[in-house]
Amino acid sequence: MVSFTEEERSAVYEAIYARRDIRRFRDDPIPEDVLERIVRAAHHAPSVGFSQPWDFVVVRDEETKAEVAEIADRAIAAAREGYAEPTRSEFAALKLEGIRESPVNVCVTCDPTRDAPHVLGRSSMKRTDVYSTCLAVQNLWLAARAEGVGVGWVSVLYPYELQEVLGIPPHIKPIAYLCLGYPEGGFPEEPVLQQEGWRERLDLERLVHDERWESDRDRS
Amino acid sequence: MVSFTEEERSAVYEAIYARRDIRRFRDDPIPEDVLERIVRAAHHAPSVGFSQPWDFVVVRDEETKAEVAEIADRAIAAAREGYAEPTRSEFAALKLEGIRESPVNVCVTCDPTRDAPHVLGRSSMKRTDVYSTCLAVQNLWLAARAEGVGVGWVSVLYPYELQEVLGIPPHIKPIAYLCLGYPEGGFPEEPVLQQEGWRERLDLERLVHDERWESDRDRS
Repeated sequence: MVSFTEEERSAVYEAIYARRDIRRFRDDPIPEDVLERIVRAAHHAPSVGFSQPWDFVVVRDEETKAEVAEIADRAIAAAREGYAEPTRSEFAALKLEGIRESPVNVCVTCDPTRDAPHVLGRSSMKRTDVYSTCLAVQNLWLAARAEGVGVGWVSVLYPYELQEVLGIPPHIKPIAYLCLGYPEGGFPEEPVLQQEGWRERLDLERLVHDERWESDRDRS
Repeated sequence: MVSFTEEERSAVYEAIYARRDIRRFRDDPIPEDVLERIVRAAHHAPSVGFSQPWDFVVVRDEETKAEVAEIADRAIAAAREGYAEPTRSEFAALKLEGIRESPVNVCVTCDPTRDAPHVLGRSSMKRTDVYSTCLAVQNLWLAARAEGVGVGWVSVLYPYELQEVLGIPPHIKPIAYLCLGYPEGGFPEEPVLQQEGWRERLDLERLVHDERWESDRDRS
């Protein structure tokens, strides 16, 4: 049984607190051993019934990245049209993805049929396969941070189009499309959307409920 | 910009690799400051559009835990009936949850209406609110590991019943019901379900796809 020293515990918190969603990348490549460690960390996430429902499509090809970026361009344009002014202009000013600039993209998928039909723990909460896949994404993100590698999650994408570009079979669900690379200008002190004035961090006290939800106390 | 030393990087990987799903707990309480750090780590997860859709219901009351455990008992019995022998007996022999034994339970929920209707990044992938909540769970799990606190995720639960017991409003989605406490006998070397012979860890090479899915190469 490993117990953590004060310094080791601080390092874990540092990865958690200094992690950022990165959209601006330098073009230096990620060494293969670094990328391998990051993906292996993802694979060691917890999963429902130890089903390990994830796969990783690792994209480096410029043409493939351009195809995915073109999907994102349209999804961003569509989202922008949904906003009324002045939010529309604020949204338009944000940089939302670094698909083309980042040296490596990783699509993390979920296979609902892996280990099915009787995945232990999925009988009463069916989407725990997807939940597990997300846990793998967070492992990847934190390992990357410890390696000095930035990660940006692009969700302004049409998943069925993404699936077609990457040749992902119809029954497999793309969950996260991640851009990986060394961040241009380093890791920002605050979340990018906070820096840009889009949103503030919520007060944790409002989100913690003692024993029961008790909606009146915290949320009025 | 913080860069990690070799030792700090190793500590992050150690948290990732030595984290386990724990179902056997000692009854020592978790100090308040430790629990606060663990929950705050969860709150610093990435979220779609910085929407922070999570809440945390912290349960210590024995009666509430007993009510939740009773839901789990039925869900486990129901799942067991679905298996054919010999898997049914193997399943029945597993200890799947430590709801009553663990000093603290935390229900992590997702509010799909927070910051809605125009959450940045949710226009084309609607369930990224739930994905974000899962990232918070993994932060919590790793912070707990660094603190020496074990976490077990109980998904053999009927979510609508859980919602009723905890007074969670109908539009809020319970994602994870977590048992927290100091693990009896420490953290196992391997995942519990692997130790018990339920499943093996998959070979990562089978799960990594170069450029495209290319189903024939890896998965035949």
